[in-house]
Amino acid sequence: MADKVADAILFSAGHLRRFTTQVFEYFKVPPADAALAADVLAYSDEHGIDSHGIARLKTYFDLLQAGRINPQPEVKIIREKGSVATVDGDNGLGLVVGPQCMRIAMQKAHAHGSGWVSVSNTNHYGAAGYYPVMALQEDLIGLSMTNTTKGVAPFNGAEKMLGTNPIAIAFPAWKEPPVVIDFASSAVSYGKVEIARRKGQPVPEGWCIDKNGYATHDPAEMMEGGALLPLGGSEKGSGHKGYCLAGMVDILSAVLSGANWGPFATPFAIHVAPAGRQVGKGIGHFFGALDIEGFRDKTAFKQEMDAWIQTMRSTKPLPGIAQVLVPGDPERQAYQTRIRRGVPVDKEVAAALQAIADQTGIALLQQE
Amino acid sequence: MADKVADAILFSAGHLRRFTTQVFEYFKVPPADAALAADVLAYSDEHGIDSHGIARLKTYFDLLQAGRINPQPEVKIIREKGSVATVDGDNGLGLVVGPQCMRIAMQKAHAHGSGWVSVSNTNHYGAAGYYPVMALQEDLIGLSMTNTTKGVAPFNGAEKMLGTNPIAIAFPAWKEPPVVIDFASSAVSYGKVEIARRKGQPVPEGWCIDKNGYATHDPAEMMEGGALLPLGGSEKGSGHKGYCLAGMVDILSAVLSGANWGPFATPFAIHVAPAGRQVGKGIGHFFGALDIEGFRDKTAFKQEMDAWIQTMRSTKPLPGIAQVLVPGDPERQAYQTRIRRGVPVDKEVAAALQAIADQTGIALLQQE
Repeated sequence: MADKVADAILFSAGHLRRFTTQVFEYFKVPPADAALAADVLAYSDEHGIDSHGIARLKTYFDLLQAGRINPQPEVKIIREKGSVATVDGDNGLGLVVGPQCMRIAMQKAHAHGSGWVSVSNTNHYGAAGYYPVMALQEDLIGLSMTNTTKGVAPFNGAEKMLGTNPIAIAFPAWKEPPVVIDFASSAVSYGKVEIARRKGQPVPEGWCIDKNGYATHDPAEMMEGGALLPLGGSEKGSGHKGYCLAGMVDILSAVLSGANWGPFATPFAIHVAPAGRQVGKGIGHFFGALDIEGFRDKTAFKQEMDAWIQTMRSTKPLPGIAQVLVPGDPERQAYQTRIRRGVPVDKEVAAALQAIADQTGIALLQQE
Repeated sequence: MADKVADAILFSAGHLRRFTTQVFEYFKVPPADAALAADVLAYSDEHGIDSHGIARLKTYFDLLQAGRINPQPEVKIIREKGSVATVDGDNGLGLVVGPQCMRIAMQKAHAHGSGWVSVSNTNHYGAAGYYPVMALQEDLIGLSMTNTTKGVAPFNGAEKMLGTNPIAIAFPAWKEPPVVIDFASSAVSYGKVEIARRKGQPVPEGWCIDKNGYATHDPAEMMEGGALLPLGGSEKGSGHKGYCLAGMVDILSAVLSGANWGPFATPFAIHVAPAGRQVGKGIGHFFGALDIEGFRDKTAFKQEMDAWIQTMRSTKPLPGIAQVLVPGDPERQAYQTRIRRGVPVDKEVAAALQAIADQTGIALLQQE
């Protein structure tokens, strides 16, 4: 992070939202959808998840411009039974399809105790954590997953077959802030390996392999035809467990919905051609919501969550660590700073935004 | 495994089942429940999950003998809404409470598209994978989790606060065998560290810490007041992700149901006193089932699963690896051997079984 801020330009969070909204509107995304999509991206920027916010706007822009994403999708439930449904996202922005599907899961949770929606024919949906946080506003436990473009080798495999397939789940608390879990099922993100290459630093064992499947400390060797490893890394770190997680996400999101799974997942990049073989439509997401009141009095649950959070925070920390955190704390800390001081945007990303501003005539203003 | 077989005595799978059933009946567990509990343990022994089968019978025996487990529980739904329910296990064997609760989740999936059951006041339930496999017989996707006695440090923590909290999920296929995922959310099991100590071997970085929180390669230092690390290990392996998984399992299984969570989870050992503070009843499980037909034609799903499995198996393997497997393959391979040749039981475990046989008068016969 320190390295990023040094190379960054500050923008106000509010201005980035307006800019993003206008960019989506430029492609005839309806105003309400454009604002929603901007909100999903802003969630990442404002919470310090730099890889999933405005940094991706250029790719959405390119794909919309190339006609590879439908700006006005008709999102439809194509099959349904009580608490579950399958939705066709009509090749819309994942940033628009995702929130609509999460709402369906939430409505089902209110009606049936839980709601589960598997989605096909959709695209990159931003940070997985945005969706369970929606559910918190209605005192539900929320969950989301998505498959993504291939980048990760299965355990004992020497080539990319699965995405970084993230999992997010959030639990409300009472006086404490909520527990918000959001992580990729790979050992690390592609971005972390990229940063190491830029700095000329080696990467630890367990992050990636080269194009022949050999473990490598050289980030360039991963980027030139190698692959990321699943969470756990190699055998001694129990890399089979990360492979299990990535597989679970892929099956629930894409096999269950009829989307492209595994190595066939639609790439989220203008310069990468879709896989030759199509096994479904677009990529897939999976959303869930649980009505706490169906299990237990919700106030009792939230108060117990406070005790859980306080107990985890009171863990004796490792030498040199001030305090054990709970999932969601780092993002909340980033939010406090960024809302006040602005969002640091990488110089290269800012240059790409300026190019969009020049092409569209939408004003891009740096923080005063 | 090789090391274990060398020190092992062979028993026929069928005889171990009968022996286990009779041991539970000795404590007035009703015959049908005793057979069910034996079936759960046999699942582990027959599938090569040596840590969760007959090797645990001595502990169930001790806890039943000490009156710490109720042999005749009245398992009751205490709260319910459509697809979800909370169950009180009446301090029964997890091996009896677990299958009953999984059945409730399955019935709900048939009626409401999905079913989710959070369970309090229960005990150790064997291998997590047993439960989703039950769901496969009715063409459902099945899921189970449980919290367990503390043994794992939170990310950046220096003491045990969470269990090895496993997650299991299974997906049916068509001509291929099902995908069966079952793994602990810790980097490795306590048993793996124990084996290293017995052999006098160091353990890799990322498995455990000593009593002061320092990384250690010495298994004895973990066992003398240290802790296991969550999946991912330390910061460079993304150990925060394993902490997220362990927390998710703990909250869904125990906070949601009203069981003892985190460091307060009831120990599964006769010589360990329960935690001084009780925050609920017993330990907790969480079960889920999804009706595939609610999402997609089930034959189409299963045929797509065949393609998924074949695609993963066709991944170019790492140098020196014959083939990439799918989750469930290692257990199926063990099953083929063990059903034919018998179950190898560790000599120390066999001696404990013989002591049970001597005390109860139940015959224990080795394989001819």
